[in-house]
Amino acid sequence: MATVVQNIERAEGEVIKRLGAAGVATVHEAQGRKGMLASYMRPIYSGAQIGGSAVTISSPPGDNWMLHVAIEQLKEGDILVLAPTSPCDNGYFGDLLATSAMARGCKGLVIDAGVRDIRDLTAMGFPVWSKAISAQGTVKETLGSVNVPIVCASAHIEAGDVIVADDDGVCVVKRTEALDVLAAAEKRLANEEAKRARLAAGELGLDIYDMRPTLQQKGLRYV
Amino acid sequence: MATVVQNIERAEGEVIKRLGAAGVATVHEAQGRKGMLASYMRPIYSGAQIGGSAVTISSPPGDNWMLHVAIEQLKEGDILVLAPTSPCDNGYFGDLLATSAMARGCKGLVIDAGVRDIRDLTAMGFPVWSKAISAQGTVKETLGSVNVPIVCASAHIEAGDVIVADDDGVCVVKRTEALDVLAAAEKRLANEEAKRARLAAGELGLDIYDMRPTLQQKGLRYV
Amino acid sequence: MATVVQNIERAEGEVIKRLGAAGVATVHEAQGRKGMLASYMRPIYSGAQIGGSAVTISSPPGDNWMLHVAIEQLKEGDILVLAPTSPCDNGYFGDLLATSAMARGCKGLVIDAGVRDIRDLTAMGFPVWSKAISAQGTVKETLGSVNVPIVCASAHIEAGDVIVADDDGVCVVKRTEALDVLAAAEKRLANEEAKRARLAAGELGLDIYDMRPTLQQKGLRYV
Amino acid sequence: MATVVQNIERAEGEVIKRLGAAGVATVHEAQGRKGMLASYMRPIYSGAQIGGSAVTISSPPGDNWMLHVAIEQLKEGDILVLAPTSPCDNGYFGDLLATSAMARGCKGLVIDAGVRDIRDLTAMGFPVWSKAISAQGTVKETLGSVNVPIVCASAHIEAGDVIVADDDGVCVVKRTEALDVLAAAEKRLANEEAKRARLAAGELGLDIYDMRPTLQQKGLRYV
Amino acid sequence: MATVVQNIERAEGEVIKRLGAAGVATVHEAQGRKGMLASYMRPIYSGAQIGGSAVTISSPPGDNWMLHVAIEQLKEGDILVLAPTSPCDNGYFGDLLATSAMARGCKGLVIDAGVRDIRDLTAMGFPVWSKAISAQGTVKETLGSVNVPIVCASAHIEAGDVIVADDDGVCVVKRTEALDVLAAAEKRLANEEAKRARLAAGELGLDIYDMRPTLQQKGLRYV
Amino acid sequence: MATVVQNIERAEGEVIKRLGAAGVATVHEAQGRKGMLASYMRPIYSGAQIGGSAVTISSPPGDNWMLHVAIEQLKEGDILVLAPTSPCDNGYFGDLLATSAMARGCKGLVIDAGVRDIRDLTAMGFPVWSKAISAQGTVKETLGSVNVPIVCASAHIEAGDVIVADDDGVCVVKRTEALDVLAAAEKRLANEEAKRARLAAGELGLDIYDMRPTLQQKGLRYV
Repeated sequence: MATVVQNIERAEGEVIKRLGAAGVATVHEAQGRKGMLASYMRPIYSGAQIGGSAVTISSPPGDNWMLHVAIEQLKEGDILVLAPTSPCDNGYFGDLLATSAMARGCKGLVIDAGVRDIRDLTAMGFPVWSKAISAQGTVKETLGSVNVPIVCASAHIEAGDVIVADDDGVCVVKRTEALDVLAAAEKRLANEEAKRARLAAGELGLDIYDMRPTLQQKGLRYV
Repeated sequence: MATVVQNIERAEGEVIKRLGAAGVATVHEAQGRKGMLASYMRPIYSGAQIGGSAVTISSPPGDNWMLHVAIEQLKEGDILVLAPTSPCDNGYFGDLLATSAMARGCKGLVIDAGVRDIRDLTAMGFPVWSKAISAQGTVKETLGSVNVPIVCASAHIEAGDVIVADDDGVCVVKRTEALDVLAAAEKRLANEEAKRARLAAGELGLDIYDMRPTLQQKGLRYV
Repeated sequence: MATVVQNIERAEGEVIKRLGAAGVATVHEAQGRKGMLASYMRPIYSGAQIGGSAVTISSPPGDNWMLHVAIEQLKEGDILVLAPTSPCDNGYFGDLLATSAMARGCKGLVIDAGVRDIRDLTAMGFPVWSKAISAQGTVKETLGSVNVPIVCASAHIEAGDVIVADDDGVCVVKRTEALDVLAAAEKRLANEEAKRARLAAGELGLDIYDMRPTLQQKGLRYV
Repeated sequence: MATVVQNIERAEGEVIKRLGAAGVATVHEAQGRKGMLASYMRPIYSGAQIGGSAVTISSPPGDNWMLHVAIEQLKEGDILVLAPTSPCDNGYFGDLLATSAMARGCKGLVIDAGVRDIRDLTAMGFPVWSKAISAQGTVKETLGSVNVPIVCASAHIEAGDVIVADDDGVCVVKRTEALDVLAAAEKRLANEEAKRARLAAGELGLDIYDMRPTLQQKGLRYV
Repeated sequence: MATVVQNIERAEGEVIKRLGAAGVATVHEAQGRKGMLASYMRPIYSGAQIGGSAVTISSPPGDNWMLHVAIEQLKEGDILVLAPTSPCDNGYFGDLLATSAMARGCKGLVIDAGVRDIRDLTAMGFPVWSKAISAQGTVKETLGSVNVPIVCASAHIEAGDVIVADDDGVCVVKRTEALDVLAAAEKRLANEEAKRARLAAGELGLDIYDMRPTLQQKGLRYV
Repeated sequence: MATVVQNIERAEGEVIKRLGAAGVATVHEAQGRKGMLASYMRPIYSGAQIGGSAVTISSPPGDNWMLHVAIEQLKEGDILVLAPTSPCDNGYFGDLLATSAMARGCKGLVIDAGVRDIRDLTAMGFPVWSKAISAQGTVKETLGSVNVPIVCASAHIEAGDVIVADDDGVCVVKRTEALDVLAAAEKRLANEEAKRARLAAGELGLDIYDMRPTLQQKGLRYV
């Protein structure tokens, strides 16, 4: 049952890169408001913004063995995404694993559990989005799987899906939808630019979006 | 039932400004240790400290329509304060709304729900105190009310009350008590200055506050 | 029953200092993965890393009187460690108490409750690890004890135990084990240095730790 | 500042009784979906359903002194409603206080904190809705207030407001709106009776409420 | 995007029934310890134990419209399984919907949100496993989908998967694995019966499972 | 390091039995309001009330091996008390282990983690106080210790300490203090009996405890 899927499909590199640049909120909107991981997933430091292909890991609680297995499966630009099979906030990952992952071209880690060596990871510029920060160690006793479908922080993620992460959290885009989502995201960004200028000039959203008639019709009362 | 109250009373500008400068802990003490919002309300970045008049918003869960309505009601120096009618951590507010609010003179947002576009808001210097950070979008389907009394993060807030917020959290001062609270706060600040010097010099609180006799009388035993 | 133990034993200063320098994750591993406080204990600002002897405080919920008593018991290099007798997130500690504690040589505070005056404490460089940030004030009505054994954030701590704290959280080392733990920690650090270089060069943990045979034997399947 | 308001207005007895009989979900709907206390407020045993006038208590955390003061203010049919001034799950209330409250005609307790002596309270048939069950004791050191406005479990409650509580939780009805809410609630109950029969006979809500056209118009796709 | 899948495949009725009879813990073990929903999913009353085919619902937060749509899709023996698209504890479901669902042969509801009319549902014998109990109402404004894959309480569920629920929580069995899991579950039950008798007679698990040599080899020390 | 302490001291049987009969709230008060476990520890069914000697277990997260080891150490009247070394809500214990424990005279289980087979345990009358109910299975891979000091749900417990548990939660009494605590508890019970009669007759706590002068002196204002 413990399985490592070695050859996974990935979206095109340029698409992934531009999804990362669009950022979480825009990508999430562009794909119809789906794909957000739970809001308890927070970055260990501010300001990181990445896009990459998911190398997924299903691990037993308190056991980080499969991270070593997964690192061998990394390709340049990938993101490690780990979900424990039952809730756990142990520190599965620290500076040694980050050193190894970076050497394989990994851009970051998304983990529905804990992480440690925060100061080192910050200094190395290796971003992590996690449920907890904890130095509590893990064991290497029980197998898990790599590149199988997982549920991570309430989101269903398959190997090769595109992960976008920034200070707003983490969003997953299905690999097969990545191109369409990118088109919608970039259209959205262009559209927002125009609105931003009008709003900055003091124009109201009530007028720009022509909300007044609907509000009145629904019965909003000004007193 | 959905109502926008257009003309609200505010405290005097100078009073609000000085309450903001006094900071949350001092203002909270000065008004008899009341008015703190729940401690889960955290700033999206460190170091901001503001005071302003509350423009209150009661919104359905996952619906940010009333923010557009509320922005029209803002006057220079106001703070938006939003409470959903049932618990929700969706991202009600992002950089476009912040652009609009700033153009109207708004100094910040206090929201018992989620916020997004954290990196942009930080770059813009628009401070937010929230229960969550989440890119999960909201709809514009159901009316709410603006400038009605709300319960936000366990505190009762009326439009025009003074909000003070900094790294310690958020405190509300009733509009009608603002002047008295300011007087007490500034007296407290002056008093603390003297104590700080004595403590820094190594004198003990036990002696400065003459606690030893009471401790002894209550039965504290040194071994 | 309310007691202040005045003369406590401490570990040797050099040992404490080097345990602090080794950091939480390493020290925790070096003592057999025990001693971590609950992962909800977070620093009020990033980057602080300290080691010191625990001056313990058992306080009633919402009552910070014993902090004044404990400050008199501080010796250069000590760390205050406070546990309320029932759960509480009030702000027990702020800039005045920090001024007093620093004047006595205190290196930081670990508190299973709330703290306030975050901006001032950050400016002063006085690090705190806490369960909450809250300006909600406390009273001085009921006695507690100083330098008695406490349970703080799920860890059993005795006065004079060594506290190590950094961005990963807080770890306690029994005073009598400090020397052995230090030896193990420093051996571990030396060992990690060698591994880090190999991992950075692209060698895999699978090979460095010779994991492949065990993985195969346990039944890991590559597809 | 610590105040006991002695003469409070109450809604009419018959109105209160019938609101209690209508139950929480119906009353909540009848008043426009407002007034629910936070869903963490749970009954200590199943099956109780009450209505009564709120005698409100604002208490310091971990201090139950004001409960004794409040009991003197009870009239036949009242409900005690306690909110601590900062979060606390201590056991403020047990069988002795319940004996005293029952002797004064009290119908139950709503408390945004802890309660104890659960087995005795259940045997006595004294219902309590609370945030926690905890035997952790409280002190009698600091004053609070009785019959002042409070925020209890996220709801704003004034003395004399009508409290309705059952297995669904707790709902507050403003005293001045009690009569109108009762009319709406009883109309609702009558209306539901008819619908229940049709639904039990296998008719679908889609048809009874004529939802199909709207669903189609909004774009629901059957495949 | 809002879709209702009308014809779903289900496992065989006899298989579903016997999986229900085997219970959650046994089924979970029999399928290799996977498929548990988060442990916060609790029954509204004790003692219910069911098995059925999932009719899945993806709903906006605070909007129960799709429940009406889903009820039309029910077949005898099905279980409704609802996941909101972002966290929400509103009461989506009460006695009227239960009346309608029961009339269509529905055996229960699993909902990663809130439920209400607890007393009525208990009296009707309609079991619900939920994240919350809340009378807070929902709207019927926004579409969702029925019989699409969902993530409910951290588990990935597809329409037609077998749901098993009892006092231990909720477990999902993939439709295509139902037969194999049943075989393993019933073998397990038979095996447990024999062990239970030996344990009841005072024999130790240490001996029945021959654990002593392994414990000794791993280094367990008796003092 | 993994150790089983075989011969532990216990309090006298009659003392333990009477402490159990006194119940949690009374025992907790009688020993000066200490010893309560965290209030999240809840019984799996209502109405159980027990006293017994703690056989303590320190277990890795998600590993229940040591329960088998601990059961061999049980003597008639003991209570199993398990704390995982890091937070975990897996189901460590079910009906087979309960069968084995009961055969050894065990009176119940206190576990700062999860438990399963709730329906069976209830039918067997084997009471459990736990942090969670979860069918999620555990492994038998890593050693822990039996009858060593543990921290369980924020309380420090040593083997042989007296555990008292009922619907109010769980309280620990140090073995060496058991006799004194019993004396104080029974005195308290006798004293409460008299007060209960007076309160039931309508006399107020304000008068029985002579609170009026102190309230007035502290400044309570009646309006």
